[in-house]
Amino acid sequence: MDQTLELAQQALAAANEAKFLANNLWLLVATVLVFIMHLGFATLESGFVQRKNVVNIIFKNVMIVSIGLLTYYFIGFNLMYPGVNEGGFFGFAGFGLTPPEGGMTDAYADYTYWTDFIFQGMFAATCCTIVSGAVAERIKLVPFLIFCLLFVTISYPMTGMWKWGAGWLDARGFYDFAGSTIVHSVGGWGALAGIILLGPRKGKYTEKGIKPIPGHSMPLAAIGVFLLWFGWFGFNGGSVLSGDPELVSLIFVTTSLAAAAGAIGAFVVSYFMFKSFDLSMVLNGILGGLVGITASADSVSVGSSLLIGVIAGILIPLSVTFFDKMKLDDPVGATSVHLVCGIWGTLAVAIFGNFDKGVGEFSDQLIGILAIGAFTFLFAFIVFYLLKITLGIRVSAEEELKGLDIGEHNFTAYS
Amino acid sequence: MDQTLELAQQALAAANEAKFLANNLWLLVATVLVFIMHLGFATLESGFVQRKNVVNIIFKNVMIVSIGLLTYYFIGFNLMYPGVNEGGFFGFAGFGLTPPEGGMTDAYADYTYWTDFIFQGMFAATCCTIVSGAVAERIKLVPFLIFCLLFVTISYPMTGMWKWGAGWLDARGFYDFAGSTIVHSVGGWGALAGIILLGPRKGKYTEKGIKPIPGHSMPLAAIGVFLLWFGWFGFNGGSVLSGDPELVSLIFVTTSLAAAAGAIGAFVVSYFMFKSFDLSMVLNGILGGLVGITASADSVSVGSSLLIGVIAGILIPLSVTFFDKMKLDDPVGATSVHLVCGIWGTLAVAIFGNFDKGVGEFSDQLIGILAIGAFTFLFAFIVFYLLKITLGIRVSAEEELKGLDIGEHNFTAYS
Amino acid sequence: MDQTLELAQQALAAANEAKFLANNLWLLVATVLVFIMHLGFATLESGFVQRKNVVNIIFKNVMIVSIGLLTYYFIGFNLMYPGVNEGGFFGFAGFGLTPPEGGMTDAYADYTYWTDFIFQGMFAATCCTIVSGAVAERIKLVPFLIFCLLFVTISYPMTGMWKWGAGWLDARGFYDFAGSTIVHSVGGWGALAGIILLGPRKGKYTEKGIKPIPGHSMPLAAIGVFLLWFGWFGFNGGSVLSGDPELVSLIFVTTSLAAAAGAIGAFVVSYFMFKSFDLSMVLNGILGGLVGITASADSVSVGSSLLIGVIAGILIPLSVTFFDKMKLDDPVGATSVHLVCGIWGTLAVAIFGNFDKGVGEFSDQLIGILAIGAFTFLFAFIVFYLLKITLGIRVSAEEELKGLDIGEHNFTAYS
Repeated sequence: MDQTLELAQQALAAANEAKFLANNLWLLVATVLVFIMHLGFATLESGFVQRKNVVNIIFKNVMIVSIGLLTYYFIGFNLMYPGVNEGGFFGFAGFGLTPPEGGMTDAYADYTYWTDFIFQGMFAATCCTIVSGAVAERIKLVPFLIFCLLFVTISYPMTGMWKWGAGWLDARGFYDFAGSTIVHSVGGWGALAGIILLGPRKGKYTEKGIKPIPGHSMPLAAIGVFLLWFGWFGFNGGSVLSGDPELVSLIFVTTSLAAAAGAIGAFVVSYFMFKSFDLSMVLNGILGGLVGITASADSVSVGSSLLIGVIAGILIPLSVTFFDKMKLDDPVGATSVHLVCGIWGTLAVAIFGNFDKGVGEFSDQLIGILAIGAFTFLFAFIVFYLLKITLGIRVSAEEELKGLDIGEHNFTAYS
Repeated sequence: MDQTLELAQQALAAANEAKFLANNLWLLVATVLVFIMHLGFATLESGFVQRKNVVNIIFKNVMIVSIGLLTYYFIGFNLMYPGVNEGGFFGFAGFGLTPPEGGMTDAYADYTYWTDFIFQGMFAATCCTIVSGAVAERIKLVPFLIFCLLFVTISYPMTGMWKWGAGWLDARGFYDFAGSTIVHSVGGWGALAGIILLGPRKGKYTEKGIKPIPGHSMPLAAIGVFLLWFGWFGFNGGSVLSGDPELVSLIFVTTSLAAAAGAIGAFVVSYFMFKSFDLSMVLNGILGGLVGITASADSVSVGSSLLIGVIAGILIPLSVTFFDKMKLDDPVGATSVHLVCGIWGTLAVAIFGNFDKGVGEFSDQLIGILAIGAFTFLFAFIVFYLLKITLGIRVSAEEELKGLDIGEHNFTAYS
Repeated sequence: MDQTLELAQQALAAANEAKFLANNLWLLVATVLVFIMHLGFATLESGFVQRKNVVNIIFKNVMIVSIGLLTYYFIGFNLMYPGVNEGGFFGFAGFGLTPPEGGMTDAYADYTYWTDFIFQGMFAATCCTIVSGAVAERIKLVPFLIFCLLFVTISYPMTGMWKWGAGWLDARGFYDFAGSTIVHSVGGWGALAGIILLGPRKGKYTEKGIKPIPGHSMPLAAIGVFLLWFGWFGFNGGSVLSGDPELVSLIFVTTSLAAAAGAIGAFVVSYFMFKSFDLSMVLNGILGGLVGITASADSVSVGSSLLIGVIAGILIPLSVTFFDKMKLDDPVGATSVHLVCGIWGTLAVAIFGNFDKGVGEFSDQLIGILAIGAFTFLFAFIVFYLLKITLGIRVSAEEELKGLDIGEHNFTAYS
């Protein structure tokens, strides 16, 4: 009998190892998917800017992901997940990574410490990538990279901690499954601060009205949107933090249907507004649907995900038109996609979410949106402002005219 | 002892949970891979059309995947897998999704209900994407989208049910592992109906002979082919409907070698036919190999997969030439790749397949090809015909000349 | 009690099946990731060559992956893993594949025989893809394909066997985790032999100095780098040959941080060298970091991975400048990335590696680098030389001027 007991214990341990193995692998696959979203952003933004600014936008995106990973290693991860100070506003677990004593496995979670770091690290740089598109075609390279360094090292992890690091917003009941607010609207607020201080591109808002400045390559933009959708399976699906069969598969469904519904919403409304089949609106409609469902992908019904997506899609042409009326020039529509739909998605939690799953009330959601929004906008505004009065943030009118590729890189994207 | 028994039961349950976890995750990864095939189609078709029609083709592909997912949710899934009416011709399990009572796990299959829906849903839109390439550069947008809506909502799920939904072709012994017929030639028949009713592009077939109209970007076309191959690992590998180690890995081998052999077949034959190293033939040769192996990837030897692939590759330049002689104008070669190689692959099951694995006899395969082909072609022909005599399906000669991007979207792909 | 024993045995067997399932699936996912590196190389090299040579470079890359897979099936796999002749210099297990008797599962490894073949097969063609970039814009197509056929069929598997097939270098203690030497510098040596015998492109090295010949599309080049990084998660992560949670996740971290640090190293040094923000240097810096960490991704600390990456990044602009001074013309920088950083990474094993993990001493590493380098360089040099004095390897000056797309393919990439 002792032998049988031993065998049964061995079998149970092996079964648990197998689960840990599969769960951890799913998080790693999700990491790979989130990683490729950086290519998605790079191609989307490249496609939506003018030919003369393509090297610059790619350069920024390449640097952002590199800076983001390195600073997340040195500081960000331990600022976002201090592991102490529950319910608090700020915490820091020290520089660099300190793997847990006693090993990597079941003591920690359904995945290893390294997996935790690299999955979260891939998210971190996203907030800057969002800003990068909005301030494109007129921002100076070095000040922008300094902004990113500060934004991704300090601002993003701090507000992220408030919820995901068991901080005060988590204690208050705020709910944001995979980051409609914590990732996307954070990027959107940074973008808004940037475009306010930068001002619009020359020739965009003229006395004769708003002059569209079309992007230089729709295939690149479309590649970007498909890759972002592709990566979002990891972004939302990985945020379960395990491979839980029911939950991950439900999230695949809600995420996909919200994206598809976003396309339809933007298609219909932009047709009525502009009397044409507007590809860039439909592409941004998909992204709006994805941002919108991100806060609640795990806790709404499939039918609700359709509504969340279609409303996000409808918001896109309205929001793009609104920002243009306010003369807030955003070449890629990042504020509409990430800020407006990020807010919408965070509120939608309280409207459509399953309260059994612990989603927040409307007031909780609103507090989260406002607190994170206010902190982030102020942080970004102050940093951009200090850069503006010191290094300057805007290229010269001459450089803007000939393009940043020549001005900043002495190179052209095509030859 | 009771305690030991309990422990052993617990261990067995945990082990089965671990298997379910891993199997389900494989299906979800396969879903992601099939999803990105839509980007593969979008870039392939963009690359093979003229510069003036790029926005239009991307717009169609973006809308198709969105429409496909939504209609599959509302109707298609329950039409393709009615779960009743075994051996029948038609069945419908009602609108929307109804998750099984008693939960998502082992009661259902090696994966959850949501996984089932989303994996199959990613396949559904493919049949329209295939059509989209063949009818490119001259079809009106709205009638095309109406066609897609009907084709993907009714035609594809109905014939799909005949085999995969345990319908009459399944009962008859027809075999089509991952859809050489059920997906690819269905798309091909739809394409054929469309190009017959549309007629060729202006200037393609002149008195002086056939004028090639080269695609505007070979890099885009190549990106498309690599992404399709990439996605095919999920298309074929996921069609095992579990992560079965031997079967999935064998399928990776047969699928890859058929693709590689397809390239070689097309390379050699196109060199002898055209006396040049023809990139578009080699690219389509790879796709032909992939379509060809799709019906039998699980049930042929690795050596046979090479033969199936090389013959598919050889068929490509022959078929492209044949369709051109018939003045059936297909800008991307979709009928050659998906219809011709789809038929070839379905027949190859009976030639090379392992009958121990339950593959069909030649006559069974032929009946499947003919039945699905006849239904699909007629369905598509009637829908396109009705659209032709009502809304019209072809853009004006003037619009065709200046391009559909300006005509339908008032936009250009590059600026 | 017997029943309980049986149940416990059953549970243990099921748990082991679950582990095998998950491990095997991880290797298959890694296979898919390594596959897409071929698209990464194709787009990277396309982007870095001139517009007039794009069809040619894509054609080569498409053919290489096809030839590589087929020859690896017929010969390469059994030459690289002869399964006999341990500690030897040469072995061959016969033509084609012979699955193990008694089935695919636990008798073999943590994955099936088919998985083993297809994962290794995806690596094989890489060595030629590296060469393809370096010799671009002036090499004749058919001789190049003949070179590839021989290089990938004979040279790569033979030297690969010395280590990974349990050959003499393995017996000597040489360590190369995922192939800084075995894959990357092998490609680099082949490239070096090629560019020595080919000579530089016309007009590159003039009396007035070195004339930069900029690539035709930076977006394509950037797509290539991101896809290569994406694929490298499978290249390094799959080389664990299981899904071991701690090891695979550690490798994700070391690989990513080395890539990011490579970008920073190249950014800083190229800024000081060229006084501009040089996108192509930063892109190659990332690749250099990835190549550098490949030999030791499993056996260095995270901090060391940063150092390895940053030094690799620093080496890139220095090496590119050095090769240009030597008038060794490499349009894409493949020798700098794969040869120089491959050597660096292999040496770094002895500097930073954890000797508890069995990494080699400096002398062991050096012997491996020299032995594989000498064999590969000589093999490639002799093959290229024989091709040069028979078929000729360089296109005519006239063809070089008008471009290989017209010369070899009678086609253009864009129209």
